[in-house]
Amino acid sequence: MPSHKSFYTAADIAHLEHLHHEPGEAPFIRGPFTEMYRHKPWTIRQYTGFASSVETNRAFKKTLAEGGQGLSLAFDLPTHLGFDSDHPAAQADVGRTGVAIDSVEDMKQLFDGIDLSKVSVSMTMNGAVLPVMAAFIVAAEEQGVSPRQLRGTIQNDILKEFMVRNTYIFEPHSSMRISTDVVEYLHRELPQFNSMSISGYHFKEAGAEPALELALTLANACEYLDTISQRGLDLNRFCPRLSFFFGVGMNFFEEIAKLRAARLLWSQAVEQRGATSAKARRMKMHCQTSGWSLSAQEPENNLMRTTLEAMAAVFGGTQSLHTNSYDEALNLPTPEAARLARNTQLIMQHEAGLCDIADPWGGSYMMENLTHETAQKARSYLALIEQQGGIIAALNSGWVDQQIHKRALQTQSSIDNGQTTIIGVNCYQTRETPGKASAYTVNYDAFKHQQQQLSTLKQSRDPLQVQQALLQLSQAAADNKANLLEATIRAIRTRATLGECTQALLKQFRRHPGNLDFIRHHNNDDQNSHSLDRQRVLTAIRQFRRNHQRAPSILLAKLGLDGHDRGIKVIASNLKQVGFDVELAPLFSSPEQVAMMCRSCQYDALGISLLSGAHLPLMDKLIKAMQQHRTDQQPGIFLGGIIPDQDIEPLTRMGVSKIFKPATPIDSLSLEIIQHLQSAPVGYQQTIQKHR
Amino acid sequence: MPSHKSFYTAADIAHLEHLHHEPGEAPFIRGPFTEMYRHKPWTIRQYTGFASSVETNRAFKKTLAEGGQGLSLAFDLPTHLGFDSDHPAAQADVGRTGVAIDSVEDMKQLFDGIDLSKVSVSMTMNGAVLPVMAAFIVAAEEQGVSPRQLRGTIQNDILKEFMVRNTYIFEPHSSMRISTDVVEYLHRELPQFNSMSISGYHFKEAGAEPALELALTLANACEYLDTISQRGLDLNRFCPRLSFFFGVGMNFFEEIAKLRAARLLWSQAVEQRGATSAKARRMKMHCQTSGWSLSAQEPENNLMRTTLEAMAAVFGGTQSLHTNSYDEALNLPTPEAARLARNTQLIMQHEAGLCDIADPWGGSYMMENLTHETAQKARSYLALIEQQGGIIAALNSGWVDQQIHKRALQTQSSIDNGQTTIIGVNCYQTRETPGKASAYTVNYDAFKHQQQQLSTLKQSRDPLQVQQALLQLSQAAADNKANLLEATIRAIRTRATLGECTQALLKQFRRHPGNLDFIRHHNNDDQNSHSLDRQRVLTAIRQFRRNHQRAPSILLAKLGLDGHDRGIKVIASNLKQVGFDVELAPLFSSPEQVAMMCRSCQYDALGISLLSGAHLPLMDKLIKAMQQHRTDQQPGIFLGGIIPDQDIEPLTRMGVSKIFKPATPIDSLSLEIIQHLQSAPVGYQQTIQKHR
Repeated sequence: MPSHKSFYTAADIAHLEHLHHEPGEAPFIRGPFTEMYRHKPWTIRQYTGFASSVETNRAFKKTLAEGGQGLSLAFDLPTHLGFDSDHPAAQADVGRTGVAIDSVEDMKQLFDGIDLSKVSVSMTMNGAVLPVMAAFIVAAEEQGVSPRQLRGTIQNDILKEFMVRNTYIFEPHSSMRISTDVVEYLHRELPQFNSMSISGYHFKEAGAEPALELALTLANACEYLDTISQRGLDLNRFCPRLSFFFGVGMNFFEEIAKLRAARLLWSQAVEQRGATSAKARRMKMHCQTSGWSLSAQEPENNLMRTTLEAMAAVFGGTQSLHTNSYDEALNLPTPEAARLARNTQLIMQHEAGLCDIADPWGGSYMMENLTHETAQKARSYLALIEQQGGIIAALNSGWVDQQIHKRALQTQSSIDNGQTTIIGVNCYQTRETPGKASAYTVNYDAFKHQQQQLSTLKQSRDPLQVQQALLQLSQAAADNKANLLEATIRAIRTRATLGECTQALLKQFRRHPGNLDFIRHHNNDDQNSHSLDRQRVLTAIRQFRRNHQRAPSILLAKLGLDGHDRGIKVIASNLKQVGFDVELAPLFSSPEQVAMMCRSCQYDALGISLLSGAHLPLMDKLIKAMQQHRTDQQPGIFLGGIIPDQDIEPLTRMGVSKIFKPATPIDSLSLEIIQHLQSAPVGYQQTIQKHR
Repeated sequence: MPSHKSFYTAADIAHLEHLHHEPGEAPFIRGPFTEMYRHKPWTIRQYTGFASSVETNRAFKKTLAEGGQGLSLAFDLPTHLGFDSDHPAAQADVGRTGVAIDSVEDMKQLFDGIDLSKVSVSMTMNGAVLPVMAAFIVAAEEQGVSPRQLRGTIQNDILKEFMVRNTYIFEPHSSMRISTDVVEYLHRELPQFNSMSISGYHFKEAGAEPALELALTLANACEYLDTISQRGLDLNRFCPRLSFFFGVGMNFFEEIAKLRAARLLWSQAVEQRGATSAKARRMKMHCQTSGWSLSAQEPENNLMRTTLEAMAAVFGGTQSLHTNSYDEALNLPTPEAARLARNTQLIMQHEAGLCDIADPWGGSYMMENLTHETAQKARSYLALIEQQGGIIAALNSGWVDQQIHKRALQTQSSIDNGQTTIIGVNCYQTRETPGKASAYTVNYDAFKHQQQQLSTLKQSRDPLQVQQALLQLSQAAADNKANLLEATIRAIRTRATLGECTQALLKQFRRHPGNLDFIRHHNNDDQNSHSLDRQRVLTAIRQFRRNHQRAPSILLAKLGLDGHDRGIKVIASNLKQVGFDVELAPLFSSPEQVAMMCRSCQYDALGISLLSGAHLPLMDKLIKAMQQHRTDQQPGIFLGGIIPDQDIEPLTRMGVSKIFKPATPIDSLSLEIIQHLQSAPVGYQQTIQKHR
């Protein structure tokens, strides 16, 4: 908050409304409950899941034994996108970013020995919410636990997928129908289960500042409310089963104020929509510390960062919390790093007295003022969205993407020019060897076993029964009065798979294309334009143009099912700004498709961004496909993302020219690329000339 | 604060005074300066010093290069107690807990290549303040830096040494004279140097709760003020050069409130003594995170603890801060751990926006209430001290020791019975191997080199000049009108050593004896009395009494120059309570003296507590001395303290029966001792019977 004054006094809060309420009282700025953590500390809920359900089951049991208080399930990308583990397009991504769920059998194995009537389960699932939620309900049923006993949260927040996360399957209209069907069914049959967790986290991680994060989250939430109201659900009964999910970053005071303001805004929005009960107006939330703030350099520093962020979440009054592991900028969390992440929360709960008081910041001149200021800024964004005809219109027009992209560029530029300081990254770098955290490798044999299981399952079930259930699911998709979750549960009971359910739905619903649009926003307030590296890049590009009578060209692509596209968009904008000819491949391109694009257009360079952990098999396939259709010369291949140290050597051997780790300044990345092109043989350049 | 209510509202602060002042305005609850960290962040001041001045000089340069903003000098125990490195009693302790300073040559080497006109230096020195301060001034003088340019702080707080820290040399009356002479001289000649840093830290580390820490600190401070006033110094000019030093522990809200209350109380105390200027009433402080909260189990947890504590110090408005290294419960900090400790502060300063606002908690219902409540409790203690005739009377009567001891017992008992939880220690213990931090070994050859230097120095100087200066120092000690620092500076210029200056003063002043008194307080509210281990201890002791017709006996001792006696006193009280016959050896006993006591009284067990790092040479000497005067059987030898893993094996080989690390529950310690005695041969017990 550098623009603020240096201190606040009573005069700064004299004009504010809602100052004299208590924790647990609407509009809940001071927290959703009177007793807060004194009654029950926030739930320590660490997001876990990798490889097979057997391995994740083991991790869950360890979590519960070591003081974890709730389970939070991460799925792999094929599951998110509705592919079974044996689908050809899914191969490289199976089990990478989370657990693979093909059928109810996997779900049963996942909770083997864990009593689902006792533990609350949070599932980050949106696109494939129908088969996953159905498998969860059926797995519980077969454990002897009735739906009414189930506690937990399903994310089921599809709108933000179209805005930032890209793990959607169907186009928005059908997706909203699915989402609402899930809400309706859970409302009726799983009264203790939160049927939606509306996420600001992903906006924050994509670059949004607190007010924008709040505005987009609340706009989405209100869109859901309105859709649900139209189905005739009583908001007084429905709202208490909604939950929110926020990211908490390093700006300590702003983050606390954000969470307080979120409750105020939500309480008012629900009230405006006619909900009368206080319970309906009470926002409950889960928080996660920010991935932005994790550095690969001196990774132990992340322990202190995460502690700071976790404190902000707690002071903000969160109901549950995930703390990142310190090595997550390097690799999947090691068990030791995961334990320290959990210990951060245990220490806060048990050693620091933080649970003794509800809303300790209540009355603070600065905090009360900042809370209201944040709410006010969010209201301005909400008014802008309203002016455009609502959030779906703002999404379709590209406004949402532009807003986030603008912020992401500013953040990257501010880090690169040192205005935002990150210890060990752009200042106080250590001269000792960085990255001591040991890489943790997933046992990928485990899902070969799972694929075998899937084939056994397909042989052992009653094919007629399955087909009939899938047909009924397709029919339900065509019938607006049918409930899709109900139909999916019936299919899952017959051992239909996640991929089959998705296919059945695709008979009626259209798949949403994975466009990777160029952002129209230009980085006008670029503060790096005078940096030395920038000058060197511009000189090199001028020289390239003189030599070749054209701009250097680069194709940027994600590979496989990885939809995290913010990084690649920031790089695209910056490369374009310095004078590259930039193209973006569609999301979810296969290695073969990208190789084909390279062959037909002969780019000078190919830049791949991969955050899914599947870089080894995907790059291998890509480079093999490129070699099959050899031209005189291959383009320089560049790779950016979370690449563990031990993978660098095999990637280099495959033919990757340069690997960029997180926190590489954009200008030095651009410089490396253009310098590489300058050193490439001239013949190559001439060949391209001819073909283009 | 478990006894407090669950939330606070405006009603909780309505009755409070001093609520509407601003940061930088008396009584300074909201901070000493208007702009606070926005103008200049707190100084990162890491306490450093080990082995020789050459090694410490290297560490200082590294600190400054890596973002450290001030130097803080730790001295070894011989220096604190006025012994040169070649003194026989000092051998084992040279260079262990800090740097050894024998003469101005060491001080010059310490700051070689560091411009003393540029960097502020804090020195934790009390007992030997005269030769150390003199050496600093002369070293600067010979660097070409005038006293008027020197910035920094000398602790020079001798009263608390008699209460808790035990690094005194002379009896209290002469010590107060020395202290006041230093203040007077610095006031005149080093106007930028803080002439006293009055410590609450050591009370906290000894077990005092916030209000007691404040009361004792302020009572000492007022005693100094009164003494100094009697010399005719103007408090308006003197007070701004006083500084305070507080410990900050895990109880987050209480610690912030403590620092805010400290400023309030001090402002009022100075005002009562007639100082009119606001500057005189403004308390400035240094803080250090607490050693209490560091655990040897899962030491990386200490990174999160220290982050929490550091935040409390910053929210409390400290002017400088030391953050402990995470491995300090295991060994001397490794360079890597020291870097992470420093990074904790850099991250707080540069990444979290904490410097943007002065007193962010200002106005918080809870914090303002708690601040005033803490001040009120401290005032009650101060009234009790007043009733006894002042702090020196309360010290002499044993009241101070009793108060602290009572709290130390309560804390230990509360940890042992799990009421106070420490993650990884008394709950959520990991099953993995603990203590991964690598031990850091000091290069002890370095001070052999220093001892040679000392002998070279003695040969090269002018002996007549030295003798004359030392004679003048003795004469100055006899003359109340002379200034002792002035006389010491003259002696130091001639290359007189620290030991020689101390000896010259001892011609007039009496050495204060190192009594280790038994605390009269009994642990009446002992909450562990029903624990299983306690019952087993009591049963074993009953059985011992039946078999031997007497209680088991134990001698407890510190060895060498280590004066940290809180742990041994807590153990003494507890062993006595369960039925041991306990004796305490005098402080500063040599290994030979302890062996002698063992021989003459034939204790069943000998318990040694060592926090000085000198356990290997001291235990070696002790056991050899005991073996020289062999009786039928040696007593069981137990050792407690900060003992690195790699030292356990050689200690066991020497004959130590059992080593207790920090955080051993008292009952399990007692049980191990009594069980060891039960398994000792019967003949031994009978021999003792005869001799006693």
